[in-house]
Amino acid sequence: MAEYVEGKRPVIEAMKTDVPLKKILLADNAKRDPMVNDILRKARQREIPVIDVPRAELDSKSARGSHQGVMAETKPFPYKGIGDIVDAAESYAAEHNGRALVVVCDHLTDAGNLGAIIRSAESVGASGVIIPNKRSAHVEASTYKSSAGAVAHLPIAQTSNIVNALERFKKEGFWVCAATEHSSNELWDVNLKGKIVLVMGNEQEGISHLVLENCDMAGKLPMMGEIQSLNVAQSATACMYEWLRQNW
Amino acid sequence: MAEYVEGKRPVIEAMKTDVPLKKILLADNAKRDPMVNDILRKARQREIPVIDVPRAELDSKSARGSHQGVMAETKPFPYKGIGDIVDAAESYAAEHNGRALVVVCDHLTDAGNLGAIIRSAESVGASGVIIPNKRSAHVEASTYKSSAGAVAHLPIAQTSNIVNALERFKKEGFWVCAATEHSSNELWDVNLKGKIVLVMGNEQEGISHLVLENCDMAGKLPMMGEIQSLNVAQSATACMYEWLRQNW
Repeated sequence: MAEYVEGKRPVIEAMKTDVPLKKILLADNAKRDPMVNDILRKARQREIPVIDVPRAELDSKSARGSHQGVMAETKPFPYKGIGDIVDAAESYAAEHNGRALVVVCDHLTDAGNLGAIIRSAESVGASGVIIPNKRSAHVEASTYKSSAGAVAHLPIAQTSNIVNALERFKKEGFWVCAATEHSSNELWDVNLKGKIVLVMGNEQEGISHLVLENCDMAGKLPMMGEIQSLNVAQSATACMYEWLRQNW
Repeated sequence: MAEYVEGKRPVIEAMKTDVPLKKILLADNAKRDPMVNDILRKARQREIPVIDVPRAELDSKSARGSHQGVMAETKPFPYKGIGDIVDAAESYAAEHNGRALVVVCDHLTDAGNLGAIIRSAESVGASGVIIPNKRSAHVEASTYKSSAGAVAHLPIAQTSNIVNALERFKKEGFWVCAATEHSSNELWDVNLKGKIVLVMGNEQEGISHLVLENCDMAGKLPMMGEIQSLNVAQSATACMYEWLRQNW
C-alpha cells in the first residue's frame, strides 16, 4: 500500500532527509506561498514529479487530514532478504577477523526506537537489522530522520517468522544472543566473539517466549536504579558496543 | 522565570508524568468539555489549585499561542548543588566497592537527549548529572517523560562553570574522563575503575576545548560505519555501561 507524507513542513523535511519520494501531489487550488514554492524548487532539484490533483483526492488519501494541500508518496522501502544479510555478514566477517553482528528486533512498537537502533547498528559496523513484517514498527519516512540517514546505508530485512530467521543464521555458524533482563548473566560475561545475532525485545514485554527459546545464550545489562527502565534503543547500543569491545 | 505547559493534552500529560505543578490556569470562558473535566478531576486528586483567569491573561503568558484555555505553571525544578552530588557519589562509593559515576553534559542543545541521558544514568547507578546553567538544554516539563520519570530520582545540578565543577571532583579523588571521538584510545582501554566523572559533549561540536583540557583522560567509541554519527545519549549509555562493566 502506498505511504504518504502529508503537510508542507513534513514534505520539506522528507526531502531534506532524503526520503525516496515517488511523486508529490499538490492540490490544484493550493496557494503558491513561500513553503509551497520551496517544495516545488526542491522537487525540481531532485527530479521528483509534482502532480496537480483535486483537493478532494488529497482528502481521500489523507490519514490525518493535515495535508494542507500537499502530500508526497514515498517509494516502497527496499527491504533486503535474510539471505542478503547473511551474505553481507559473511563478507564483513571475512574482512574483520571473523566478527559480524546482525540485530533482530522482536516486535518493537516505537518507530523512533527502531530508527535509533538502526543508527547505532550502522555506527558499530553491524551487517543488518531484521524486523517482523507484521505488528512491528517498520521503516517509514520518519525513520530517515530518526536514524540520521543510516537507514539508507544498512540492509534491513522483514521476516514473517523470526524463529526461522534465527535458525538460518545458526546454520551459518552464528551464535544467537538474547538481550533480556530475565537473564542471570551480565552481558559482559557472555561470549560475544565472532558472528553474533543480537535479539532485542519489544518495549513492554521484551522478547517473546518462542523467540527466547531459540536463542543460544542470553545476557542482561544490570539495572542499578529505582526506575528499572532502560530504553530499548539505549540498551541495544550498549549491547552492540559490548560486542565490538569483545571482538576488538 | 515561571515556566508553563500549555494546551489541554500537554497539561494532562504533565499530570500523568508527575511534573510538579504549582497551579493550573483556566480561562474563565473555557467550555467544560471532557478533556477540561479530566484536567479538573486530576488536579483535584493531586491537590493542584485551579484558578479561573481572563483568557487575555493566558494569551499574554502563552509562548506558542496554543493554550486552548488551559495552562499549568510548573514548580521550579529543585536543582541540587555540586556539593550534594559529591556527597551522594561518596556515599554511593562507600557502599559499592568504591565505584561512583557522575555525568557532566557540556552544553547539550536537545532536551530529549538530556532526558534520555538522565534515564540511562539512573539505570546504571550514577550519582548525578551536571549541566551548565546557560546555553544548555535544562530540565523542563517534557524531561519527566523523556527520562521516564528518572529526573525525579536522580540529583541534577546546574553550574555556571563546568571547569570549576570538574576541579572540585578532582580534589575529591575523582578521575575525569572525556568521551570524545577525537581521542586515540578506545574507551574500553581507558581505566574507568573507581570514582569517575564522565564528560559528554554538545551534539554538534562535542566537548569544548577548555573543558577537554581539564579532563584527566579521554576515550572514544569506535565508529565503524559510513554515517559516523552516534547519538550523544546512545553514546553516553554505552560509556556508562562500560564504566559499570569495569567496576563489576
